[in-house]
Order: sequence, then C-alpha cells, then structure tokens
Amino acid sequence: MKRDFIDTATYTKEELTDIVELSLAIKRAIARGYYPQLMKDMTLAMIFQQSSTRTRVSFETAMSQMGGHAQYLGPGMIQLGGHETIGDTGKVLSHLVDIVMARVIEHKSVVELARSCSVPVLNGMSDYNHPTQEIGDMCTIFENLPRGKRLEDCKVVFVGDGTQVCASLGFITTKMGMHFVHYGPQGHQLNEGHKEILEANCRLSGGSWQVTDDRSAVRGADFIYTDVWYGLYENEMPKEERVRVFHDYQVNREMMQLGNLGCKFMHCLPATRGEDVTDEVADSDASLCWEQAGNRLTAMRGLLVYLTYGQRQFCGTRIAAAKEELDGFLRERLGGRGNEG
Amino acid sequence: MKRDFIDTATYTKEELTDIVELSLAIKRAIARGYYPQLMKDMTLAMIFQQSSTRTRVSFETAMSQMGGHAQYLGPGMIQLGGHETIGDTGKVLSHLVDIVMARVIEHKSVVELARSCSVPVLNGMSDYNHPTQEIGDMCTIFENLPRGKRLEDCKVVFVGDGTQVCASLGFITTKMGMHFVHYGPQGHQLNEGHKEILEANCRLSGGSWQVTDDRSAVRGADFIYTDVWYGLYENEMPKEERVRVFHDYQVNREMMQLGNLGCKFMHCLPATRGEDVTDEVADSDASLCWEQAGNRLTAMRGLLVYLTYGQRQFCGTRIAAAKEELDGFLRERLGGRGNEG
Amino acid sequence: MKRDFIDTATYTKEELTDIVELSLAIKRAIARGYYPQLMKDMTLAMIFQQSSTRTRVSFETAMSQMGGHAQYLGPGMIQLGGHETIGDTGKVLSHLVDIVMARVIEHKSVVELARSCSVPVLNGMSDYNHPTQEIGDMCTIFENLPRGKRLEDCKVVFVGDGTQVCASLGFITTKMGMHFVHYGPQGHQLNEGHKEILEANCRLSGGSWQVTDDRSAVRGADFIYTDVWYGLYENEMPKEERVRVFHDYQVNREMMQLGNLGCKFMHCLPATRGEDVTDEVADSDASLCWEQAGNRLTAMRGLLVYLTYGQRQFCGTRIAAAKEELDGFLRERLGGRGNEG
Repeated sequence: MKRDFIDTATYTKEELTDIVELSLAIKRAIARGYYPQLMKDMTLAMIFQQSSTRTRVSFETAMSQMGGHAQYLGPGMIQLGGHETIGDTGKVLSHLVDIVMARVIEHKSVVELARSCSVPVLNGMSDYNHPTQEIGDMCTIFENLPRGKRLEDCKVVFVGDGTQVCASLGFITTKMGMHFVHYGPQGHQLNEGHKEILEANCRLSGGSWQVTDDRSAVRGADFIYTDVWYGLYENEMPKEERVRVFHDYQVNREMMQLGNLGCKFMHCLPATRGEDVTDEVADSDASLCWEQAGNRLTAMRGLLVYLTYGQRQFCGTRIAAAKEELDGFLRERLGGRGNEG
Repeated sequence: MKRDFIDTATYTKEELTDIVELSLAIKRAIARGYYPQLMKDMTLAMIFQQSSTRTRVSFETAMSQMGGHAQYLGPGMIQLGGHETIGDTGKVLSHLVDIVMARVIEHKSVVELARSCSVPVLNGMSDYNHPTQEIGDMCTIFENLPRGKRLEDCKVVFVGDGTQVCASLGFITTKMGMHFVHYGPQGHQLNEGHKEILEANCRLSGGSWQVTDDRSAVRGADFIYTDVWYGLYENEMPKEERVRVFHDYQVNREMMQLGNLGCKFMHCLPATRGEDVTDEVADSDASLCWEQAGNRLTAMRGLLVYLTYGQRQFCGTRIAAAKEELDGFLRERLGGRGNEG
Repeated sequence: MKRDFIDTATYTKEELTDIVELSLAIKRAIARGYYPQLMKDMTLAMIFQQSSTRTRVSFETAMSQMGGHAQYLGPGMIQLGGHETIGDTGKVLSHLVDIVMARVIEHKSVVELARSCSVPVLNGMSDYNHPTQEIGDMCTIFENLPRGKRLEDCKVVFVGDGTQVCASLGFITTKMGMHFVHYGPQGHQLNEGHKEILEANCRLSGGSWQVTDDRSAVRGADFIYTDVWYGLYENEMPKEERVRVFHDYQVNREMMQLGNLGCKFMHCLPATRGEDVTDEVADSDASLCWEQAGNRLTAMRGLLVYLTYGQRQFCGTRIAAAKEELDGFLRERLGGRGNEG
C-alpha cells in the first residue's frame, strides 16, 4: 500500500503535523551530528521538466545524508510522455528505483505518473501547487511562532500574484486551522476552485480565509509572504506591465509595518529584489526566507522517510541467509579471482 | 588483466551463464534485504552520447545499491572525440574512475574507448549491438522458461525491424544454444554479417537460426520479441511509410496465437503502443516487458561485479597500516582543528 | 571561521605544502586500500558555467571515495546571477550543502559566491586562474623531483599561450621558491598584473621568474609545461592564425632537448596533438600528463579535507542522545509501520 505526496488535500491535519514534526526531529538529530540512515540502500529518481535549484539540491542532499542516492533526470534526459507514455515510464521506473519525484509543467502529468508507479511519487511543483514547499514553510512557521501564540492564532498574508506557491500556502494554512489572506490585484487572485478548497479546509479546521485587494487585510499579519511577479507559466507579462499591475504589492518597510509587531517576512525564493521585495526587508532580522530555503531540505528528509518508513519488511535471519548464499556463489563461481590478500 | 564487455562474441556460453546466474543471485539477495557491497569505494563513469532512461537509471541504481557511485556524463557534458581524442579521454578517465560505460552513436567509439582505458569498459548500446540488454533478457528468459523445457529447447522469435536489439537477441540466443528467428520484412532483416555470427554460434552451441519474411516461422515460438519500428539511427522513415512497411509485423493477439500455448511477449521498451505492439498484448499476463525493464538493473549489477570482482587485491594488514599512517598525519598536521568533541 | 580556496595568493608556502602533503598522504592510503571516510555525510555542490571533464569527474570521485556526495549543477541547471543574484544563491546553498565548488566564466563570480556563502567555496577554474590544477601539478612535481634536487632547485618552463593555467603555474611555483619561466610570443605573454604577483612571491620565497620570447630561456628546464593554443575565452583565433603565431612554441623532441637530461613534459590536458605537443612527446616516458590527470583527483581529495577538517565539532555522547531521541519519535509516531521482521 504505497502512498504518494501530490497534494496536501489528501492528508489530514494530523498526518501533516506528523510529517512536519518528523522533519523537525530529523533536523535536530542532524544538527547534533546524528545522520539517521533511514533511506539506506534506496534510490530516488528525480524527474525535472523544468530546471530547479532548491527542490533539486534539497532532495539530493536529503537522500545522501540519510544513506540513499538521488538520480537527477533533467529536462531532455528523460521524456515524460514523449516516445513513451507516462504510464509506461512509471511502470518501468517502479522496477528500477524505490521512490520518484517529479517537477512537471502540467499537474496532470504528476498525477498520471503517480497512478502508474507502484512506488511512492512526490510532486516537486506543478502549475497547480507546490506541496513540498508547504511542508518546508510549515516547519519554518512551527519554529518561529510568535511568543505565546498557538498555530491556530496566527494570521498569514500572501501578498502579490496568485501563483501555485500562493495557492499552496493557502491550502496548508487553512488545513492547519490558521488565518489566511491573499492580498493581490484583481485578475491575479486565487480562483473559485482555490476558494472552495480553502472554505472546505476552514470548515473542518476552524481556520479562516480571505482573498482581496483591500490593503487593510494585511493588518495584524504574523507572517507576510510573497513570490515573484512572473511566477505563472502562462500569461507572462513584460516587466513594465507587471511593475504597473503589482506596484502596490511590493513587500517593503511600509507593508511590513501593517503587520503585527514582530511580523516575519517569508519568500519561497528566488526573489527579484527591488520588485516583489526590497533589500531592506529581505535582509532584515524579520526575514525568514533563508531559513525557509534550509527547511526545504528539512521537509524533503521528513517526506522521504514518511513515505518509505516501514514499507520494506526485512528480517535479520533472512538477510543473513541471503548473505551466506551469495557468498557461497561468489566463492564457488568467481573464487579464482578472490579478494583476499 | 582487465576485461571489457563490448560484445558477447568475446564471451563463451559458460562465461555468459556465469554472468546471468551471478546477476540472478544478487537479485535474490537484494529481494531478501541483503545489499552486497561489492562495488564499495568504486566509481563508474557513465558516458552517454544519446539520452537514455533504462540504461542510465539501472546502472546508477546498481552502483549505489552495491556501495559504489555512478557519474552521469551526458551529451554535451563530456566530448568523445571532440577537442580531445577518444584515446586521450580513455587514458584520463582510467586515472579518475574504476570502471566506464558508454552509450555511443558509432560502435567503433566504444571499441576505441575500451582499447585506451586501463579499466573495464561496458557497451551501453551502440548502432551495432546492445549487450547489457542481452544479459537482462537472458535473465528474464531463465526466470520464465516454459514448464519442463530447458533453455536449449526454446524458440525465440524477433518480429519487425532488424535493429541492434534484434541482432543482440540473435547473438545471445544462438550462443546459448536456443532457436532464433528474425521475422521481418525484406530490406529490414539482419544482414550477412549478422548471419555469419549466428551461424558460427549455432555450430558451437547446437542452436539454430532463421531470417525470413515467412509468417509461418513464428509458429511454435516460446518467446515473441519486438522493438520499435524507427529504432535504427540511419534511414528513419516517416510514420506513414513505416506503418506501411511493418504493418504485418505488429505483435497483436493473432501474432501471439501463432506461438506455443503460454508463449510470452518481450519488448526492450520504449514501445509505440498501437504500432509495434497492441495495448492488449503489452498489458497482458503473457507480457514480460516490465520484468525485462527490472532485469536491466539485474544485469547491470551482475556485469559490474563480474568485471571488477577480485581485481583489487587488498590486504587487511596493509589497510590497517595505511589507516594508522594517515591518522598520524592528520593528527600532527591538522590536529589543531581536531574533530573530537 | 570558514576558509575558501579561490586563489593560492591567500595561502602561505607552508599551508600549500600542507595541502600537497595531505593530498599525497590520502593518495597513498587509498593505493593501499584504505578509503578514509573524511567527507562522510557531507555534500558538495558543483556549479559549472562551462562543461568540464577532469575537474568535474575528479571532484565527484573524490567525494564518493571519502564517504560524501557531489551534486552536479551544470550549465543551465542552476543560474549564477540570472533571476537570482549570486549573493542570494550563495546564501541558499549554504543552507543545503556543506561545501561548494564553481567553474565560472568570470573570476569575479566565484569571488562573489565565496563572499556570500557561509560554507567553504573552491574555484574550479575561472578566466583568471586554476588553483586546483596548481595543487595537482605540485603533487606531480613532488612525486617526480629530479634525483638529488630539492623543489627550490628546479626550473619550470611554461611554453606557449599565457592562459590561466600558465598564470597559475607561475603563481604556485614562485610561491614555492622554484624558478619559473613563461616562454611565449609577444602579445600572448603573462601581463603586468601577473608579473607583480610573481615578483612578490619570489621576494618572499627566494624563487625567480622570467617572461620572454627568447628560446634560450628553455635551457636547463626540469619541467616543460604547455597548454592548448586556444585556451583563453576572449580573442579566440582561427586555426591558421594560431598555428602561425605559436609555430615555434610546439613542444616537440627539439624543445624537450633544450631542457635538462631527464626533463619531464607536463600538460593540463586536453592537448591538441600535432599543435601544442607532438604525439612523440605526449606519449613518451618523459610525459607526466596522465599522472597529472590522476593527480587532479589527488588534489581534490586533499583540498576537500583541508577545508572541512575539524569544522564540525561532533561529540559521541550528543550523537547517541540524538539517536535515542529520534528513535523514540519514530517508534511512537510511525511505529505502526515498524521495520522489524
């Protein structure tokens, strides 16, 4: 019974909390010098239809720190849905690796890949969502809760374009019972489909949501989050136009001062300094964006372990018997070339 | 005395049997949870002049499962025969890695590379042959012999274009004493050079071979194998033409029914569903093509171990002395920064 | 207090000697079968703005031989100074990996990267210098000192174009107190900036330097070194022109005979056989160029260990406590899926 990680919608608040706390537990272990070999002997295939820094590097580091190995299958190195159907590629990979991640152009590609794979599949970002970013960001929020507040007391405001990162932040915060606002210009706000999910999440969790171009909605934010202004694959705008459209949505000192005292700045990065955020804010003590980048790695470790832990049921006696049998074969059939000195 | 794996022609039936059985022995060990660290400390350089899914992923997984590491040197990352001669690249790589594999456009490139390397070289497919596929397919056939039949009793029919996979299947089956048929249209059949090798193999092994466009040659097949219709690098045909030429060579229900009861379907993949094979056949219980993909990994493990086993003659006492000497150097020269807590 | 390796100018003769001797000590250990796990659990990010064979393969092999892992971030896979500033990329990578190397088009890029990274950064070649090559070459010279001579007695002549390899050879040899000559045509000689560094080095070390187009300067060489004639990124010349300009600077039998008896040939490779060096010389017993290629790996191992040794202060008790805590978490929270058989 494999489980995929394509969309946090298929996970409960309790499961997501487990993943976040597992991620943080592994982070603490490694900070003290203990690298748990929980991915030992395992291989992750990383399929990238688009290039990536953070997602790729953090998955690859996560695997090797925990005793496994990640293979980079970049654009052009492997085709998803070219000569071979995605379904066939999924079946083949399931015989060759233990777990798969894919950054895809179209969300349906990673859904189809997950359906055809008999091993777990992780969504490393699509045009619809970015769920590994969600886990990383939740780790950062857990570690930076305002003094005396519970998660459920916090307000998170995403400022700017309704990218897949914006949607993902809405998904996870409302799932966890937080108060989410998307403050963005008309025409670039989360859509009706997103709103239905936010609403359903809040009904269960007791959180709240709002999508608006009313600047006053930023007031009382504990976390102000933004992303670049050219983040969506479709409808890329020339620089002048996007600066015109998003001009009021730059995260600068004035914007930060709308938030609570001690309000923190978040960004999935890369940032376009001077556009979506000022240097002053990005480099300030209030900025969590570098911690967030580090928590991409934190999240990848937790997710990889969560999806594979206990999947392989090995027994010491069987392993010993297997070793003895193979050693016998090697001695008998290749023994003339023996390794002993 | 290094040995390469460029062409199964330079291996005896007994040696090839050893490689197949070693591959299957390691597969059984890993299935029971024992990952033999037979490639420990070793590095494989993987040179790809063309992109690849199965060959690349299975080599890389094989190395990491057995304690070693594989480096991906893809198209454009390293030149074979550009600014630097292949001979010079071979000499250099021999100082930097322990074993080399190359997927090349022209067979002579991998031959020249093997000649210049002082470490073992594997052919990961050329325009002439695909010998690691041969070992994988032989593993699949060993695991799926018809009840009560020995290898030497089996008939293997390759249907369609005389690709390098077709030639390779002919090479290995006739070497092993099996009965091989290439059923393909005139102009796309194995050539005289291939036939001489098949004939020489059969004379030694007691196998048989036939190259024909007579459909009745498919009768009595235990294994029916096909490949895509655009597999050869030269002479690529537009889709309409290849459908016209190969129309009668699709592996479908009717074709499978020409074989023996329980006849199995094989394909090196990727398949072009609806052209070379129907969905019905590829996805049926008679289809071994997914097992074959998994046995690419099986074969790579066996080959890597076979070519390196016993090459390094290490002695425990020498290793201990080397450790002591290096530890002394580190203490004395870098000791101020000591690692102890 | 991290330290980078961008330019040997920031290292003393004693420190460089330590690095060379550490490199050779690890080489000896591995030759006897002891692979010291000095990079265990560590990840190296390798950024390449240009393709590379020797630098990339030797860094990647070095990491895996010593228990770590190297990630290949090739041209197009990660941007240095594209959407994201180099400074931001450096800060992010410092959270995701333990050490960084970069081969850059412009020297200032690696300088800026080092400034922004909180982890050590190595220069894998720029348009200005090639310091890992310097360490490898010094390893080769240490291993091949003329009988009865100390390092400080040796004369090294670089013949041909004043490439970054030529400059680097001048930097390291004069730093070490050797006698360095650049014999090259006017317009392709080391410049005033280089000469100032050579002069400053010699004043400290007692070495000497000369930049000249006078062929007699080759006399008495213990080592004759060359590089390709199209090595500088700017001012690439058509083949006919460079053959005309550099005609007298080919390293051939006559050139070698100007050196001392037993004079050795060196080349950073790749070579353009028939241009910068004849087959006869490159393939002769006097040629060290293949050893040099092997010593790229030797140098990478030494440098990686030198820059990270003692940086992580781990304590056995803390590690054990961390293990116990994480094991407890896994048992309690994921225990239902337990790994025991």
